[in-house]
Amino acid sequence: MGGRQPGRTLGIDPGSQVTGFGVVEKKGNRLQHLASGSIRLAALPSLYLRLEKIHGGLQEIIREYLPTEVAVEKVFMSKNVHSALTLGHARGAALLAAVEAGLELFEYSPLEIKKAVTGYGRADKSQVQSMIQTLLGLKTVRGPDVSDALAAAVCHLNWFRPLPG
Amino acid sequence: MGGRQPGRTLGIDPGSQVTGFGVVEKKGNRLQHLASGSIRLAALPSLYLRLEKIHGGLQEIIREYLPTEVAVEKVFMSKNVHSALTLGHARGAALLAAVEAGLELFEYSPLEIKKAVTGYGRADKSQVQSMIQTLLGLKTVRGPDVSDALAAAVCHLNWFRPLPG
Repeated sequence: MGGRQPGRTLGIDPGSQVTGFGVVEKKGNRLQHLASGSIRLAALPSLYLRLEKIHGGLQEIIREYLPTEVAVEKVFMSKNVHSALTLGHARGAALLAAVEAGLELFEYSPLEIKKAVTGYGRADKSQVQSMIQTLLGLKTVRGPDVSDALAAAVCHLNWFRPLPG
Repeated sequence: MGGRQPGRTLGIDPGSQVTGFGVVEKKGNRLQHLASGSIRLAALPSLYLRLEKIHGGLQEIIREYLPTEVAVEKVFMSKNVHSALTLGHARGAALLAAVEAGLELFEYSPLEIKKAVTGYGRADKSQVQSMIQTLLGLKTVRGPDVSDALAAAVCHLNWFRPLPG
């Protein structure tokens, strides 16, 4: 008896300076890291060129690693209206790449992601990063954007874990 | 002696419920309305499907009317962070379609647009709509989203108007 068993998951941490991504798969009980990294945008002179790079970069990753679903953190708040608008642009470009490729989209709250990864909803970024390294058998995870993207993917894969028994 | 003479302009009023668009051209001193309308999104069950429809709908319009540039209103504020995030997603999907098609992008403040269209920076929506009808020789303009999209295009075309010789 099992619940839904999801396949290969692309986690995304969208941002207008850096967009992190990670592709993770679950085989039996074992999580397997397939790829991760970040799309760096700060050098591009306009938000619009950044949107193009986020969208195009994720399209490439989707073509190469063929995930079946996408996991992303829900956003509830932001420093201010301006940063919410900017983040919205980046998030729109990122999620569009996923929807256009026919991937199913799942959103999780920061609390759900931290709990799924560390067992503790108030874990800080370094605890999340350290658990991600352990769970995926990685020597290093390059930066919080990559770690957050992988954490969203891991949360999704554990959330839908078949019930024991 | 003239300043820059822009070509066919696509005005966009991005929104997650309705995205208005209008294509306007300037021939000599005369503004010519080529097309306008709205992409209606409210019936779609998720923001992500709406992003896909905004992006795909504008891609079609760009392919059909071949504008060379895009004009859009700058956003400074929003009711709250949540609505700013949602608007950001819609705006990101809309502007991505323009950037991917290689169009040049121009942003104008609400004040600039109202001034360019009505001569008065504090004009209300119905004054803008009525002037748009007059300037473009239209019997009707269907709704404020279409009117705002056309107003952005008209502002752009008048902004770059060659100086009188």
